[in-house]
Amino acid sequence: MSRPIITLTTDFGPADGYAGAMKGIILGICPEAMVVDISHEVGPQAVRQAAYLLSTVTPYFPQGTVHLVVVDPGVGSDRRAIAVQCGRATYVAPDNGVLSLALALDPPQTAVQILAGQPISATFHGRDLFAPAAARLACGAGLGEVGVPIAVGGLVRLSNLAAERQADGSWLGQIVHVDRFGNLITDIELPMTGDAAAERRSRAVVWVGKARIEGVKSTYSDVVPGEPVAYVGSSGRVEIALRDGSAAARLGVGVGDAVRVEGLP
Amino acid sequence: MSRPIITLTTDFGPADGYAGAMKGIILGICPEAMVVDISHEVGPQAVRQAAYLLSTVTPYFPQGTVHLVVVDPGVGSDRRAIAVQCGRATYVAPDNGVLSLALALDPPQTAVQILAGQPISATFHGRDLFAPAAARLACGAGLGEVGVPIAVGGLVRLSNLAAERQADGSWLGQIVHVDRFGNLITDIELPMTGDAAAERRSRAVVWVGKARIEGVKSTYSDVVPGEPVAYVGSSGRVEIALRDGSAAARLGVGVGDAVRVEGLP
Amino acid sequence: MSRPIITLTTDFGPADGYAGAMKGIILGICPEAMVVDISHEVGPQAVRQAAYLLSTVTPYFPQGTVHLVVVDPGVGSDRRAIAVQCGRATYVAPDNGVLSLALALDPPQTAVQILAGQPISATFHGRDLFAPAAARLACGAGLGEVGVPIAVGGLVRLSNLAAERQADGSWLGQIVHVDRFGNLITDIELPMTGDAAAERRSRAVVWVGKARIEGVKSTYSDVVPGEPVAYVGSSGRVEIALRDGSAAARLGVGVGDAVRVEGLP
Repeated sequence: MSRPIITLTTDFGPADGYAGAMKGIILGICPEAMVVDISHEVGPQAVRQAAYLLSTVTPYFPQGTVHLVVVDPGVGSDRRAIAVQCGRATYVAPDNGVLSLALALDPPQTAVQILAGQPISATFHGRDLFAPAAARLACGAGLGEVGVPIAVGGLVRLSNLAAERQADGSWLGQIVHVDRFGNLITDIELPMTGDAAAERRSRAVVWVGKARIEGVKSTYSDVVPGEPVAYVGSSGRVEIALRDGSAAARLGVGVGDAVRVEGLP
Repeated sequence: MSRPIITLTTDFGPADGYAGAMKGIILGICPEAMVVDISHEVGPQAVRQAAYLLSTVTPYFPQGTVHLVVVDPGVGSDRRAIAVQCGRATYVAPDNGVLSLALALDPPQTAVQILAGQPISATFHGRDLFAPAAARLACGAGLGEVGVPIAVGGLVRLSNLAAERQADGSWLGQIVHVDRFGNLITDIELPMTGDAAAERRSRAVVWVGKARIEGVKSTYSDVVPGEPVAYVGSSGRVEIALRDGSAAARLGVGVGDAVRVEGLP
Repeated sequence: MSRPIITLTTDFGPADGYAGAMKGIILGICPEAMVVDISHEVGPQAVRQAAYLLSTVTPYFPQGTVHLVVVDPGVGSDRRAIAVQCGRATYVAPDNGVLSLALALDPPQTAVQILAGQPISATFHGRDLFAPAAARLACGAGLGEVGVPIAVGGLVRLSNLAAERQADGSWLGQIVHVDRFGNLITDIELPMTGDAAAERRSRAVVWVGKARIEGVKSTYSDVVPGEPVAYVGSSGRVEIALRDGSAAARLGVGVGDAVRVEGLP
């Protein structure tokens, strides 16, 4: 077996000891694991943001990676703790929908509800429940060794995750993420490639906030500095940027705001 | 020997190269070391905060871990650089009290004052003194190879670290940390478990800021959203949270503010 | 071959998935690599800041380290992607000058323009171009396997990187970095050591903002709290600090502001 990889995605922030305690637990159970920080700065309890973030990194990790996600507003309630085996990776998280987008890219095969082997804290399941399960799975344990089987079809999924085609043929979606550069990432996927596609995209019109943007370009450099530009981003979705500036600040929009694209096939 | 682990806790912040330079030095001396970031966002020169943070992670790391702490307002003065061997782990830090809480959980056996083998910078002992010592210890050097023996009893300890019993039987402590969620962590330890303990806790009263909170619960979910709740946190201390909100913001309190608990045994 | 090390320096920030995706790519290509975060909080597109930061950490990493830098305002334009082999380390970055200061300390021997082996995104070359090249180089590929030779002399260099001697004998430089403590790091190098040098430094005068500071000391502790002090910092440059405070805040200066030192040899 090659060296196990465990990624961490949490909302613990950079100044608390919560992520550190999880790393200690993991290394005690699976000393050969490589622990990789994805981010500990998901907004507090921002399940939807974490779901998006996770889906932008999981496709790039090697087969067999264990992705551990602790964004857990329901800790201490009766929400389930789950481990999900997919074709590419294994996921450990609270069953609150945070895996929705990752599992759409990496369909689940089997799932278990993680059970604690001993009394645990009521408020820090990241340390006491999720990290031990992830470490054991990374070191070779089967799903059945960390929990009891549950139906894959019954996992909690977030609603309203994808843009929808409207009666007039336009696509209506929303901003799902604003990155550090102020770029607006939408949920409108646009995997078209080739010259014909470029031709079609050039005639599309994007509406966001009060702005009307002509054409969906290939990259920001296709406009002059200070101009808003729509383009197909690195995750295959429509994004809006301001060359050498923040589109979020200029257009006064943010996560959840509507984006409409007309003229796409 | 299993793979050496060195944890890093500093106040260097995320945007400077200081932590990176320390990692380079460590990997040059002990290439097989696993370097684990705990936090580089301790408040600048916030020794007390670092002491608390450290104590919440050290109990969860494997036997033999080296914990390297650089929060060092006295760099360049005559404060000592120390390495401390305990039953569980080894600690490398300035002798300014930053280890006080960790050493209370992992009693020291022997200690040395770290001496530089060559001329070093006057302002960056993290890179020039602490990191080399930690790397050598992680790779198998004995304490005596990095410094000269000093008395364990003479290590600097922070004062006022624990809550005190008052004449009326109540416990008077303080807020020692506000975490990213706005939860208030106090220095009032409450390791009681079992049904009788739960019964006793339910009759306790917690005073913080202008708030009076009835009972010490098991978890936040025991109250309705928006209500303050006192409970025993994941480190065995009384904490105060606001379900789905920030207790620090709502109650207008912070680190150092008083907390009183009445009705505990 | 000892274990390969790849360091990451980017402006991606801590909350996006960009750095995580790069780590996944690297571990897929070179599973034994140790990936070391230097910083992901370089200011957005702040090439000059990244150049300084990098130069403060590269000298401390072992021979053979691969330093991967993605601060890339020109992504999608015709700026080149480069890999540079030096005596000590290998560097992978956009050819925008971000390596200028590191290469001044570790002179380049050969360089290539990195070419993509397949169609890649137009906006995320960190994931699609730089990370794969860095991973292959770390795992033993030669420069010629990731790109085509280019002239070392033709690499983009930042201008105005070093302080200049004035006609009156003073040194005129600028603030190149303000660290987390508010310390001002300048581009005035002062490698003098020994007693005679200390004597000379004690008679120097430093001008910054509206402040006049007498003498270049050895460390902050040489002045009383609240006083500004000039000293030779851990990278061999003149720095200005306020003991127990922020020199940047007190003096009202920042990156790019002028610093003048009189009376140095």
